[in-house]
Amino acid sequence: MEGFFTLKLSEDKNALILLDQTKLPLEETYITLSREEDIWDAIRTLKVRGAPALGAAAAYGLYLSVKDSPAQSAQDFLALIDQKIAYFASSRPTAVNLPGALERMKCAAKAYAPEGVAAMKTALLNEAEGIDAQDKKTCLAIAEHALTLLKPGMTLMTICNAGAMATTGIGTALAPIHEGVRRGYGFKVFALETRPLLQGARITCWELMKAGVDVTLICDSAAASVLASGKVNAILAGADRIALNGDSANKIGTSMLGVLAKEYRVPLYILAPLTTLDRRISCGKDIPIEERPGDEVTSFGLRRTAPEGVKAFNPAFDVTKVAYISAIVTETGVIRPPFDVGLRDAIVFENDCNLDSR
Amino acid sequence: MEGFFTLKLSEDKNALILLDQTKLPLEETYITLSREEDIWDAIRTLKVRGAPALGAAAAYGLYLSVKDSPAQSAQDFLALIDQKIAYFASSRPTAVNLPGALERMKCAAKAYAPEGVAAMKTALLNEAEGIDAQDKKTCLAIAEHALTLLKPGMTLMTICNAGAMATTGIGTALAPIHEGVRRGYGFKVFALETRPLLQGARITCWELMKAGVDVTLICDSAAASVLASGKVNAILAGADRIALNGDSANKIGTSMLGVLAKEYRVPLYILAPLTTLDRRISCGKDIPIEERPGDEVTSFGLRRTAPEGVKAFNPAFDVTKVAYISAIVTETGVIRPPFDVGLRDAIVFENDCNLDSR
Repeated sequence: MEGFFTLKLSEDKNALILLDQTKLPLEETYITLSREEDIWDAIRTLKVRGAPALGAAAAYGLYLSVKDSPAQSAQDFLALIDQKIAYFASSRPTAVNLPGALERMKCAAKAYAPEGVAAMKTALLNEAEGIDAQDKKTCLAIAEHALTLLKPGMTLMTICNAGAMATTGIGTALAPIHEGVRRGYGFKVFALETRPLLQGARITCWELMKAGVDVTLICDSAAASVLASGKVNAILAGADRIALNGDSANKIGTSMLGVLAKEYRVPLYILAPLTTLDRRISCGKDIPIEERPGDEVTSFGLRRTAPEGVKAFNPAFDVTKVAYISAIVTETGVIRPPFDVGLRDAIVFENDCNLDSR
Repeated sequence: MEGFFTLKLSEDKNALILLDQTKLPLEETYITLSREEDIWDAIRTLKVRGAPALGAAAAYGLYLSVKDSPAQSAQDFLALIDQKIAYFASSRPTAVNLPGALERMKCAAKAYAPEGVAAMKTALLNEAEGIDAQDKKTCLAIAEHALTLLKPGMTLMTICNAGAMATTGIGTALAPIHEGVRRGYGFKVFALETRPLLQGARITCWELMKAGVDVTLICDSAAASVLASGKVNAILAGADRIALNGDSANKIGTSMLGVLAKEYRVPLYILAPLTTLDRRISCGKDIPIEERPGDEVTSFGLRRTAPEGVKAFNPAFDVTKVAYISAIVTETGVIRPPFDVGLRDAIVFENDCNLDSR
């Protein structure tokens, strides 16, 4: 995107630079992180967030955490990689792109094990940069396919931020908006504020305004009346993990949009890279849902907004079942129900991580 | 309620005392208001809110604004009353209880016009106290009827605050919870925080905790996943205005709960006094919906949470259509669909304001 970036490796390749998203929209602050604890913490505390961006951040984090290792043998180095993978994977549980990217990193290192630790380190750097570059390309492909579902002048609704700030490219759910606006499509957007952490208000509005998009902020609870009014032509959402049957985990509130979409006959499109597909999970009920601290709901910043001692239930995600999804758009194209078949076909195009085939 | 009250006339009957609800839950501050502008402002800025409480507050406000009038003739005094009614009615547009209570006040004054201004002033005071007393009684009757729909041990969900703090009694939607808890029913409650002004987090949680109720706070957007989990037995909501066909305007987000209730087969009950029924409005699309300032969504207190200059759409209410409502509970009983018939029958029990019959 012009004028800002989500994350990148520093020029000397010794640190990860990222825009601290917890400071948006008041401050546009870039932070430079080289220590693994700081990168883990940036992921945990949502300084960087969004499933694809988490994959890239974790990949760079893994590289940075092992690049100066004194390990002499490939075996020792792989053991260290395993340890760091477990560490970074523990930062957030729902987005599958994160462990997926780490797994890709491990495969890359393993493939170069016969050539020694130095070659493995180079492979890790190349793989992290490859994940980053692929993310950028994937965003453009998602935009292209999603635009076949949309018409100029449409009004769209979105939740959370599945935008440029959730990827290293132009986003997933927001990718066709960015690309459409570049083509003069004149989209209008209703952005849900997305409680409790207000990624919609803070990040999506900021990102879309920077890109010159006509965006209107609403409370999450106002989605029903806006959809009932007939003003919205399509709902675009990202995903943090998609099961093989198409059930999609995304920011809490997305399943509400799914039920409303069905009731008010507005299509709900899930836009996500294939890295979001978890091939080990057959349906949504097996997707782990991160439960975050209750004080995200009971306080605002340092100010208490609910009585001391009140219980709070704060799931960060929910699962939208396939019955509520009109299409899933990945970098390979538009997938219509039955999603299990379409997703299986899409996987065929993927490059498998397979040591034996190298 | 024990330990707190929403509003009452001062002992010398020269001022209205109310708990400033904008300060909850951090402070329990009672304010004493005698000037009409201060009472108007307290209503406008939600220091007092909730449809039935607004009726009582406006009735007391009207009395206080005219009680010292030097008017000599009944005609002059009635003209003044008309002027003050227009003034107080302009404070908030959606709750029909407010103009309804003001209309009752006018009828009371009119009835005593032949006896002179002093008698009219006494009639106004009696009528305001009557509205207050009737509200308390109505809350108890709603509790009694609603409890026929509920069983001990149930888990309930509610939005905003249709509790003691929205009435002069034990509330409307929360009335059966208060009464049930008093009887040892062991209800559990999920309270939606209710953006943008967090009446659920600030007021409902505060009120239910004071009463010893097991309450769990959730974001509005988490209602879908909580309802999908099957944990909730019934949704209880209040209403700010009910059309003759049963369509009910209530806090923004209630129509979302209606759609979710239908989808997940959880009954949605609307609990409200008959003063909430607008006999001039046949269906929901004719109910005026208050649109409040966008900065309630773009800022939190003094802290900006969305970019400067972003557009925001902030409707304070939405309309839940009858298709999503399982029952409407008023002080006269439980009304099942078709609501138009049931509501018409309920009206029969009401005392009409009719000057000729006196």
